[in-house]
Amino acid sequence: MPKKKSQAKKEPYKGVRDFYPEDQFVQDFIFDRARDVVEHYGYEEYNASILEPSELYAAKTSDEIVNEQTYNFVDRGNRKVTIRPEMTPTATRMISARRRELALPLRWYSIPNVFRYERPQHGRLREHWQLNCDLFGVPGVEADVEIILLAYELMRAFGASDNDFVIKLNNRQVIPETLALLAKQNGMKVTKDQQVKLVRLMDKRDKMKAAEYADLLRELLGDKLSDVVLKQYTPETIRRLIQETESGAGFLNLLDTLESRGIPNIMHDPNLVRGFDYYTGMIFEVVDTSPENPRALFGGGRYDELFELFGDDPMPAVGFGMGDVRIRDFLNSRKLVPAYISSTDVYLVVAEPESLLVAQGLAQRLRRRGVTVAVDITGRKLGDQLKTAAKKSIPFALIVGENERKTGKYQLKNLATKAQQELDEKHIADAVFETLE
Amino acid sequence: MPKKKSQAKKEPYKGVRDFYPEDQFVQDFIFDRARDVVEHYGYEEYNASILEPSELYAAKTSDEIVNEQTYNFVDRGNRKVTIRPEMTPTATRMISARRRELALPLRWYSIPNVFRYERPQHGRLREHWQLNCDLFGVPGVEADVEIILLAYELMRAFGASDNDFVIKLNNRQVIPETLALLAKQNGMKVTKDQQVKLVRLMDKRDKMKAAEYADLLRELLGDKLSDVVLKQYTPETIRRLIQETESGAGFLNLLDTLESRGIPNIMHDPNLVRGFDYYTGMIFEVVDTSPENPRALFGGGRYDELFELFGDDPMPAVGFGMGDVRIRDFLNSRKLVPAYISSTDVYLVVAEPESLLVAQGLAQRLRRRGVTVAVDITGRKLGDQLKTAAKKSIPFALIVGENERKTGKYQLKNLATKAQQELDEKHIADAVFETLE
Repeated sequence: MPKKKSQAKKEPYKGVRDFYPEDQFVQDFIFDRARDVVEHYGYEEYNASILEPSELYAAKTSDEIVNEQTYNFVDRGNRKVTIRPEMTPTATRMISARRRELALPLRWYSIPNVFRYERPQHGRLREHWQLNCDLFGVPGVEADVEIILLAYELMRAFGASDNDFVIKLNNRQVIPETLALLAKQNGMKVTKDQQVKLVRLMDKRDKMKAAEYADLLRELLGDKLSDVVLKQYTPETIRRLIQETESGAGFLNLLDTLESRGIPNIMHDPNLVRGFDYYTGMIFEVVDTSPENPRALFGGGRYDELFELFGDDPMPAVGFGMGDVRIRDFLNSRKLVPAYISSTDVYLVVAEPESLLVAQGLAQRLRRRGVTVAVDITGRKLGDQLKTAAKKSIPFALIVGENERKTGKYQLKNLATKAQQELDEKHIADAVFETLE
Repeated sequence: MPKKKSQAKKEPYKGVRDFYPEDQFVQDFIFDRARDVVEHYGYEEYNASILEPSELYAAKTSDEIVNEQTYNFVDRGNRKVTIRPEMTPTATRMISARRRELALPLRWYSIPNVFRYERPQHGRLREHWQLNCDLFGVPGVEADVEIILLAYELMRAFGASDNDFVIKLNNRQVIPETLALLAKQNGMKVTKDQQVKLVRLMDKRDKMKAAEYADLLRELLGDKLSDVVLKQYTPETIRRLIQETESGAGFLNLLDTLESRGIPNIMHDPNLVRGFDYYTGMIFEVVDTSPENPRALFGGGRYDELFELFGDDPMPAVGFGMGDVRIRDFLNSRKLVPAYISSTDVYLVVAEPESLLVAQGLAQRLRRRGVTVAVDITGRKLGDQLKTAAKKSIPFALIVGENERKTGKYQLKNLATKAQQELDEKHIADAVFETLE
């Protein structure tokens, strides 16, 4: 084959990550625990392709995401395709397609990768992996409670304590209703259109300066109303106004129920909005309480009307998406990620070529007892083989040489502690499990 | 929010699949078993993004795949991006980037999804999931043996018997060497370029008619040599010629070693080529022995020179990729896929609203004992709740009502057998595990 002179680059595509075994170990730590929690709550796994028809995102995902941040292209057959920026529209599409056959309520989870075209920065990458957890078919407060409880249980399963995070809550109907009430009390009115735009503006508030926000607010609501909103739309006023709104009672009931179910770290945040246009009720965010880094870790909410995208009747739906990038940062900052250890338990070091077949036979028998075993088949010096095992963070090495073949006694080396045990073959598996369990 | 009139379609993008829980169950069956096998052989998991710089595939992946079958696009920052059509270049890139730090030999596996723009048809979809297993850093026959043994063990772990499949082997150096020898014995020569092109042509042989193949062969080699190849390049001749070629001894040694290690169903297939340009040594394919459907299920080979793509020295590398689509077809045809059962063990049926809190407490305690439990929070009639559990293929239902709350005795219903047990709370978990293990 003629050699090509041009060299390919060794870096991955911009803004995405390579997962070497020690990186994959952290991913597995996060998502194995997550999977364990949600399956214990009766959530069942689904999955779908990363490619979706572009129309799926046109109507209900936020404008910013669709117009500025999605990966779109036209395929060789002239179809408009999008690399999914989020999973919720996909789950909704799948349920809509089988709405009659599926037995509601549905508890579904998935761990997809999703893409956004963003400038890569701390906590934001172009690709991240995301646990998605959704409960379909239950309109009541119990569904909202379950989803928030799941988010809480996830954090606890990662090893976080109640002081490490707070769960902020708000409601997408309460926002315009309290606003309308505030306007009314001041002798003014807010149109539906203004309400929708105000929610979008509030969502971007953290990303702009106070003066810029005030200007945009004035542009949207006029001088008088924007003045009222800026001065009076405060947490205190809103908490008072909520009592009198249509959706207020339900929201206050949610807060009470969560408290009575023993979640100590919940908090109403009247400024919480969340980006997606499709939310229709409760919204929440799990926030890091670290004073240096008080970031949102993940969140979700209720989106009963997303099914209208497919011409369907609304369906009660509530859920959240938890991305790996921010959770990994959080876990690192709290030192909650365990030290890397290889998924291979034992490295079989082969002292001389004549011992290879014996080593491979031994390896097969250990595998049948559940031990994960790699055999060194390089024929290198014993010391080099041991170094390889240690460098890979494999917990044990076992030497097979002439002496071992004769006596049937093996030296099991613990590569972390340097401790060494002489064992018969039948005791090797138990000795390994004793240390690793 | 104003309603949009246009409706999004409910189907996935063309040629890809939605995985509902019962579909995901089969995926998990395939890849959990695969993961179990390869980890027991000391393979460690890596992963990477599905997006790669396009240049990664330009040089060494087959022309057909790159020019006709890849998904390419230009991103918003004007970078040429490809949705990976295979995983091997990615693994090679990652190892090349850390060649000095990584402890060889490396045993790596991954379960990525890969994309090809093909006309969707039986056994071929635009997206499939693929176990990739590779051994880097060992040039000898032992590495080839291990990779083929892994392929064999995978098939056995899926429940296939030795009669269900055969492993066909060939060698990418033996092909041109035997061809050159044949030409020489007939007083002719084959150029390097002709050799490369002949391998590519042989790869497409199955997709064309005999006359078309003969024409293309004549075009490539001329009348005289193509005549010799057509008439004499038969399995019998090749097996005789191999003995005299440079690479022949190594290949025959591989066949012998595999036989001596107890793999009964191997076979030399002189016509086996496999598509990728990067193979440099042993190649193999696991083939279904069903007379109605004698298809290749998966395969791989040695590709020591792929590292040259990055300007690196060659590195010994051998591996395979096993896609889910064909394996699933195979398993279905052999009735090897187990019946679907939900990952949720118990469905808690709540007889009346007053029992909900008790049910949720009970659910929490069962979860702590390892049982996966969904609580029906819909407030529907008891019969409807039971129907939901059965429709979801959840193995057990447990009713919580006034009577149960009073007596502390619960009815555990096995929804498949309709058997019912009356149990104290403390015996529920064991009763569930007894049936499910």
